[in-house]
Parts: sequence; structure tokens; C-alpha cells
Amino acid sequence: MADRQARKQTDKQNIRLLLSYDGGSFGGWQKVQNGKKPTVQGTLEELLGGCFRENLTVTGSGRTDAGVHAYGQVANVHVPAEIWRRQTPEEWRDVWNEKLPSFLRVRSVEEAPADFHSRYSAVGKTYAYLVDEREVPSVFTRKYAYACGKKLDLAAMEQAAEYLLGEHDFSAFASKMESGRGTVRRLDSISFKREPAEAGRWGGWQNGVGRDGLLHMEFSGNGFLYHMVRIMAGTLLEAGLGERTPASVKKALMSGDRQDAGVMLPGQGLILLEVRY
Amino acid sequence: MADRQARKQTDKQNIRLLLSYDGGSFGGWQKVQNGKKPTVQGTLEELLGGCFRENLTVTGSGRTDAGVHAYGQVANVHVPAEIWRRQTPEEWRDVWNEKLPSFLRVRSVEEAPADFHSRYSAVGKTYAYLVDEREVPSVFTRKYAYACGKKLDLAAMEQAAEYLLGEHDFSAFASKMESGRGTVRRLDSISFKREPAEAGRWGGWQNGVGRDGLLHMEFSGNGFLYHMVRIMAGTLLEAGLGERTPASVKKALMSGDRQDAGVMLPGQGLILLEVRY
Repeated sequence: MADRQARKQTDKQNIRLLLSYDGGSFGGWQKVQNGKKPTVQGTLEELLGGCFRENLTVTGSGRTDAGVHAYGQVANVHVPAEIWRRQTPEEWRDVWNEKLPSFLRVRSVEEAPADFHSRYSAVGKTYAYLVDEREVPSVFTRKYAYACGKKLDLAAMEQAAEYLLGEHDFSAFASKMESGRGTVRRLDSISFKREPAEAGRWGGWQNGVGRDGLLHMEFSGNGFLYHMVRIMAGTLLEAGLGERTPASVKKALMSGDRQDAGVMLPGQGLILLEVRY
Repeated sequence: MADRQARKQTDKQNIRLLLSYDGGSFGGWQKVQNGKKPTVQGTLEELLGGCFRENLTVTGSGRTDAGVHAYGQVANVHVPAEIWRRQTPEEWRDVWNEKLPSFLRVRSVEEAPADFHSRYSAVGKTYAYLVDEREVPSVFTRKYAYACGKKLDLAAMEQAAEYLLGEHDFSAFASKMESGRGTVRRLDSISFKREPAEAGRWGGWQNGVGRDGLLHMEFSGNGFLYHMVRIMAGTLLEAGLGERTPASVKKALMSGDRQDAGVMLPGQGLILLEVRY
């Protein structure tokens, strides 16, 4: 019996994938039946199932919604060890990237301990939300930012963000969903950064074509509730537009009432940057 | 007769448009019969024709090919003055942007002298060509850069670029086409800029998502032959890959033979940044 268990363990190799994808091309992370668009999980499971000749489950650190992008999503999957060892991790990465659509890339592949779990082992995440402040939105960021069409009051946004830092019950900043973990999370930092509108010789061009006039908001914490970043971003946006006071954020945290927080911004402006373990 | 001519002139107002478009969504600038994709010129002429209730010709500073992007394309068109005066230029801009597809934006509209011609009045242009040097190309720049998959030798590229500066017969760096202007052009500058792969707190993210690992080449001159920037970029790329010596560029300029220059890179990495008058 012990032998059989030992053998079963060595039969599988847990591997960890670092993934980047353009959310606009996917109907979200999670595999669904009869979806109109492919999902990230479904695409990966089909590819790996073919390579390893059995049905495999690819687990992501979180289930990004339709339209949400990822620069550094992490996933893991237990694959047949014997087949896995026939190639190096880099060779597997290249084989997979050749077969995957160009809007999904495996940035790296590595072996992980058997008990590594992309969701349960994560200790922190960083998301960003992009807002296009230009009067005429850029064609080049139209699928990667929310176009608000005007310059925001950054000082008010920073003041509002202060209230969100630390450990809180973020009920007011979440869409309802089943959760075993409760609604308390710790937000470690919120940063704001504007791309310079003009910066000498290279102009707006210097930070990538048409990327001047973008406001980047970056959120780091130990975990995020469903829709939490998009609702926080919407609340900060309202503070930046003068539609709410920074102090109203405190009231929303206290009441836990979704009505007291701001609007949820669209998924296309959101990107999962990093998962920490 | 003189009266009629005078009246006819005042009937029209010449206007100048500053345009930005995502070349991937267009079959190039020039209007064609039965094209599969819309063209920039065709899209604008249909829109303006409707607004001014007559057939109008929109003239661009140059005819960007299918796939080529523009951040600062300039066009002009003579419109019926009486209708034009009913709204401010900003109002026209907003009305047009509301009707145009999101991959084409009018950044600004202004009145121009009757003799302003977007092509003949131009005294200089700046183009950029983007190369993705990452081993695994970014999903976010897959439609805006040429993915070469390796780090280029920047010093060799800069040396090769030196030979191209100044006034030359650029025959070797052009695709054949009819031209009344000959093949001599003056290249004023070629600049290279790498996005930092990692830059502290904001990481590769700081210059826009996934824009680390990009090499920007920028070309300014008094004019460019057909395909000239894409062929120069391909020639410099070959120098950066060690496939040709920097001095081979001089040979190509002297011989005027297309075979002596490098490959033409794809249109999707090219962007028209600015037209000067």
C-alpha cells in the first residue's frame, strides 16, 4: 500500500506556469460549456491534454473575468512525470507557445513541489487598473484602459486611497459570491503613476506609442474579493472626478454596504501583474 | 466670371485633420474598390461626405500601407464653408469621433489656408519601428512590433545607422514604384531607445504593460521612399543580429541595388509619428 502510494506520487510532476494573456480574446479564465469565446483554462487543458495524453486540470491563482488581462498569472498542473522528463522545461515552453494562439503566452515553466497550489499557496497579488485621461482616447490603449476623457484630481484619489490601506472588511467593495475565506483582506499599497504627456525628444512616444495621458493605479495585497479591484478603481475614479469625498471611502468600509462604494469599472482596464508565493 | 470664381473659392474651407489609427484594423490609407478591410481614406470620405452632403476628397500626407499605424497622420479636405461654420472645430471633432470606429480617432481639427496640402506642404516626417527583443514575445505588443526573439547588438545597429544619415540616393532601400520626385532623400536622425526591462518598483510595467523588452527605432527625414523605413529597419536588424557588417550599408547606398540592402520588415511594427510643415 505504501509502495503503491509512493509510486503514484512519482508518477506525476507538479509544474508551475507563468502566463501572460490578452483578456479581450478570452471569455475569462474558467472553462465553461458552450462559451462563445475560448477560455484560458480550457485552451491550456486542451493543449496539455494532447501533449500528455490524458485529461488534466490546470489550476490558476484566480479566475480572471472575461476581458481582464494578465501579465503574470500563475497556474499549476500535475502532469505524467515520464512524458514530462522527455524534454527540458524550456523545450516544453517553446512547443506550447508554438501551438497556442498569439494572445496567450507561457512566459516560463518550472517544476514545483508536489504540494504547490497556485491558489492556496499564494501570499499576495498585484493588480493594475489603467485609466485614459485624454480628451480624445488613444486608439492604442482602447482595449487596455478605461477612457474617462478628463484629467483626474490625483490628490483627492491619493487621499481616498489612504483609507483603503491596511486590514479591513471589504464587503462594500465586492460583488456577492460564495466564499469560504470571509471578506477581510489586507491591502498593502496603492500607487498612482502618470505617463508624462510630453517628455522631450521622444514625446508621448517614449513610453510606448500613445501611452501618454494614461493613469496607472497599482494595488498590492494579500488577496482580493470578487470584483474588488474594479470597484476600488471606480470609487477612486469618483473621488478624482469630485463626485465623492475621500472620507466617503471610510464610510463604505464601515457600513459594508455595496451602495456606499463606487461603480465597478469595466474589465478591460484591469490586469493581473504578479502573484507572490 | 471673376465674381463666380471668387465666390467659388469662399464657398470652401480647407481643414486640417490630425489622425491616429490602429493599422491592423485597416487595409491601408488609400481607398480601393472591393477591399476586404475598410481604408482610412474611404472611412473618412464616407463620414465627411455625409456631414457635408457632397462627395469630398480627403488627402493624406502619405499613403500608409495595410497594417501600418499612425499616431500623428495629417490630412486635409476642402469642405463647404457654410456648413462648416455651423459648429466649432472641437464640436466637429467630437461629432466625428462619435461616429468613427474606435480604431480611428480625430485628435484635432483646424482651419488651414486654402493652399495647404497635407502631402506637398510637408517638410519632414518621423516614423518609428518597434522590435520586440524578448525570448517570449509580449501578447500586448504582438500587433505593434516585430518579434525578433533575441537581444540585438545595439552598437552595431548604431554604427550601421550612421551611414544612412544625410542626403543620399536611397534606391537600394525602396520598393520600385512610379515617382516624380526621384530617389534622393535627406535622413536627419535615427535614434534607438530600449524600454528598461526592470525599473524598480513599477517593474516592466512602468512603461506600459508588457512594453519592457522593446527596442524603438525612430527615423526623421525630409521624406521617405516607398517601403523605405521598413527596409532600413530590416537592414539595421540584420546588423544587430550580426548577419551583415555596418559597412555593408554604405555599399548598398553606393550601388543603389535593392539586393544589397536588408529584408523589408512587416508593416505592423511601423508607425507614422509626426508630419512637419
